Amino acid sequence: MLTHKRIQYLKSLQDKKIRNRDGVFVAEGFKLVSDLISSDLNVNNVYVLEEYVDKLPFFENIMVVSGKDMDRISGLKSPSGVFALIEIPKHKMVANDTGKKLSLALDGIQDPGNIGTIIRTADWFGIEDIFCSENTADCYNPKVVQATMGAISKVRVHYCNLEETLGKFASLKVPVYGTFLEGENIYSAELSPNGIIVLGNEGRGISSCIEKTITDKLFIPPYGQNVFSDSLNVSTATAVICSEFRRRTL
Amino acid sequence: MLTHKRIQYLKSLQDKKIRNRDGVFVAEGFKLVSDLISSDLNVNNVYVLEEYVDKLPFFENIMVVSGKDMDRISGLKSPSGVFALIEIPKHKMVANDTGKKLSLALDGIQDPGNIGTIIRTADWFGIEDIFCSENTADCYNPKVVQATMGAISKVRVHYCNLEETLGKFASLKVPVYGTFLEGENIYSAELSPNGIIVLGNEGRGISSCIEKTITDKLFIPPYGQNVFSDSLNVSTATAVICSEFRRRTL
Repeated sequence: MLTHKRIQYLKSLQDKKIRNRDGVFVAEGFKLVSDLISSDLNVNNVYVLEEYVDKLPFFENIMVVSGKDMDRISGLKSPSGVFALIEIPKHKMVANDTGKKLSLALDGIQDPGNIGTIIRTADWFGIEDIFCSENTADCYNPKVVQATMGAISKVRVHYCNLEETLGKFASLKVPVYGTFLEGENIYSAELSPNGIIVLGNEGRGISSCIEKTITDKLFIPPYGQNVFSDSLNVSTATAVICSEFRRRTL
Repeated sequence: MLTHKRIQYLKSLQDKKIRNRDGVFVAEGFKLVSDLISSDLNVNNVYVLEEYVDKLPFFENIMVVSGKDMDRISGLKSPSGVFALIEIPKHKMVANDTGKKLSLALDGIQDPGNIGTIIRTADWFGIEDIFCSENTADCYNPKVVQATMGAISKVRVHYCNLEETLGKFASLKVPVYGTFLEGENIYSAELSPNGIIVLGNEGRGISSCIEKTITDKLFIPPYGQNVFSDSLNVSTATAVICSEFRRRTL
């Protein structure tokens, strides 16, 4: 049985401040937690309903809890019955070879579903590092973790002064890409196999201080003359861009 | 002031049954409603807080409501202050030229955010028709409408017996595409400028009865040997596929 204090603590991890203070985050769901147990992350504790004990991969620190306690620790409306406490990994800010690879940068992205989907997409397209401005939503928010479907265990997410970081890359002649209405058609533009692709906020796009660091402006052209929307969703645009960069190297 | 009965009615439109019975749906948010007023859809009523009246495009049937009434009719945790009641358009099921264009088919997609994003993506890539199996979530769900960012006014969404519809297309030699692990690499596969692209359910993919109608299996290859995820999010995959089909026609 969980103590009242433990329940309060696990619940408090929905809050970014507590997560950052203690260097831990939570994940829920049978498939997600199973995948994270098998990943490189350090899982500290797993709390499950009786029925899931034998179905999870081997893990020494599993505790069976009652449905009532699960309801109390869960951040979900319909708790899944599997809950894990996991250490936030400490990534080196910039590896020496970062400029030789393809990376992403998020400039103030707010929607947890978008960030999670971008992390999952990055993993699929072999992108290892994502640099985020300080005002980008927290990647250890439970909704982000859920949307990554476990890819958060693989992709390194760095929060930093993005303007400074991108400025450094640009000064090292690493191309810094961003999408703008006046950008070059991505399908015909020259794309480097290395560089950083900047994705902007859902409403206002790439901020002006970050725009100054962009070396190559791109644009995903709409098809036909009759399009209603004035933009693509940012996680959708990320997928199109990553796909096109990777296709070129095949 | 809104009557109690009217408030109850507007609230009830969060429910698919009531929407289908009366052929109307609701949309919320200043930008979304502004765009829908200017679209081809028939907007019946707009309810707004005083402060928004002069900012919306001209519309004859605007009613100012109190913050309290707005809270009551809204389906959002934080009501936006702009709420519209709109007619569900009646689309012809299949136009004569459907087989000559590129269309999408959704096989049991459940997440409103995914469906909305797919509709927005379809619009961007000039796709006019989306065929949905009956067990696909309702495209007039307020969360779907929100995620389309207004593209719901442009793309025609048809609910149908998908197996039958796809079977008809296949028998007319229209290619029916779907993504499968054993599919052909999409970047090197031959892609027709017309046809139907089937997208499967978030968890189980394309169902076996629909798989039988697929004529061309495709696959978006992961990049490198070191990928954690076993799939892309379905709306992300849709974007990559549409982008690749349209790129070929440039």
